[in-house]
Amino acid sequence: MEEEKKLDAQMSRRSLLINAGKCAVGAAGIAAVASALPGFVSKAEAVGGATEKWPWPYVKLDPEKTAEIAYNEWYRVFCGGAVISSVFSQLREKVGEPYKSFPIDGFVFLEGGMAGWGTVCGSNAGANVVSNLIIGPRIAGPDCEHGHSVGADMMDWYSNTALPTFAPREPKQKTAIIQTTSNSPLCHVSVGKWMKSSGFALASPERKDRCARVSASVAHKLVVDLNAWKDGKFIPRSSWTPGKTVGITGQQNCNECHGTNIPAPPMAKTEVKK
Amino acid sequence: MEEEKKLDAQMSRRSLLINAGKCAVGAAGIAAVASALPGFVSKAEAVGGATEKWPWPYVKLDPEKTAEIAYNEWYRVFCGGAVISSVFSQLREKVGEPYKSFPIDGFVFLEGGMAGWGTVCGSNAGANVVSNLIIGPRIAGPDCEHGHSVGADMMDWYSNTALPTFAPREPKQKTAIIQTTSNSPLCHVSVGKWMKSSGFALASPERKDRCARVSASVAHKLVVDLNAWKDGKFIPRSSWTPGKTVGITGQQNCNECHGTNIPAPPMAKTEVKK
Repeated sequence: MEEEKKLDAQMSRRSLLINAGKCAVGAAGIAAVASALPGFVSKAEAVGGATEKWPWPYVKLDPEKTAEIAYNEWYRVFCGGAVISSVFSQLREKVGEPYKSFPIDGFVFLEGGMAGWGTVCGSNAGANVVSNLIIGPRIAGPDCEHGHSVGADMMDWYSNTALPTFAPREPKQKTAIIQTTSNSPLCHVSVGKWMKSSGFALASPERKDRCARVSASVAHKLVVDLNAWKDGKFIPRSSWTPGKTVGITGQQNCNECHGTNIPAPPMAKTEVKK
Repeated sequence: MEEEKKLDAQMSRRSLLINAGKCAVGAAGIAAVASALPGFVSKAEAVGGATEKWPWPYVKLDPEKTAEIAYNEWYRVFCGGAVISSVFSQLREKVGEPYKSFPIDGFVFLEGGMAGWGTVCGSNAGANVVSNLIIGPRIAGPDCEHGHSVGADMMDWYSNTALPTFAPREPKQKTAIIQTTSNSPLCHVSVGKWMKSSGFALASPERKDRCARVSASVAHKLVVDLNAWKDGKFIPRSSWTPGKTVGITGQQNCNECHGTNIPAPPMAKTEVKK
């Protein structure tokens, strides 16, 4: 099992590097190459946006302060917006552009697992927006590899951690907020398990405060990881690459929906090297 | 059942209007009010981003052309990026800002249901990014109500439609691509059902082309809806408000994961008006 994990991690790292190499022909990759070639007209500059040059300037932030901002912002822009705002609002002040031009409040729709459909928890989605916009998307070249891996690590950590881990200095709800482990990055599963264990309804102030604290917990970890990346010390922990290992995108809790009857996806024919 | 649907639709509309009204005290809402009051210093202008004024300028686009762009962009930036790029790249040319400043390529991470975890299909996520950024988030006031509802309608349509509905003029794969109905907005469920019915693997060129066509199908419907909104003729079709009706965020296919043993969430006490 441990060997499999190591193998996955190696495969994951290898595939990321291969993909990054391949994708350096994309618009952003061309920009990176072009910047070293005076006179070369960058395709990215011609068709890409003004903000499509990665990584974006980043200064290290205080995780505790960021989590406090996320907690309070949850009550204004909810989970996804709160995580994005907690990082980008500080960087608007400390750095300016491109953060000033990013429409943070437009991401309120991440609430309730996207427009209330209970899919991915907005905190995870918001963290992926932040990591992929600061560090860059994986198609932008090897320097941007960790935009993806900070985001993927968050999905893994969120699924396997008893949340919330963060308690605000001045909680809006004084009631004890219990911790539950979702085993899933989905809103419906995460909120559902917490509601079942705590007995509090979706519309209760306690459930709302729990979600505000989950957003704050995610924002805290996000900034710890971004700071490590800034220092060149970020090491991805997640080795979850289900597309490669089980032949379909997915979570880690197959049994929870499928029971013991997990369907086997059709697999691509193995290429035999001659 | 039909009555329930009507009631849900009414409740949904009512709650959206109530929420929109409530949220007009948010930053963007204050901006809307402030614009009518000379000398009033807008909170949105002070702390919000340069692009946080809604709706963004929109000119009607050709759904067929948009779908063709999405299809081809899938092979560069995958599902979520393709839907965003198909609309925003045209508006960069026809309108300019704020589309030029929006980092389209940063949204590659929506691929594979967010970093490969199989959660919400990136096409749905991309459509929600587009509708909520063009029309605005629901907290920005009543004029922005349909940012949420165009996005929510997409989740419903995606779940209940045999996809893909769109075939490109010059398909990269000549093999017939069958249509399947996911009953879910999730990547894992949507792709998994198609793989099961078609027999093609995740890594197959046919599966990739199917996903490119799904992104194109979503982009097509998105522009049809945005054009209707621009003409003042958009009418929301989705009445799915599970938080209000069943007490938890969720999809419409409870049985598929829960079987017949669907847990009852703890409900908030009903307020008795005296």
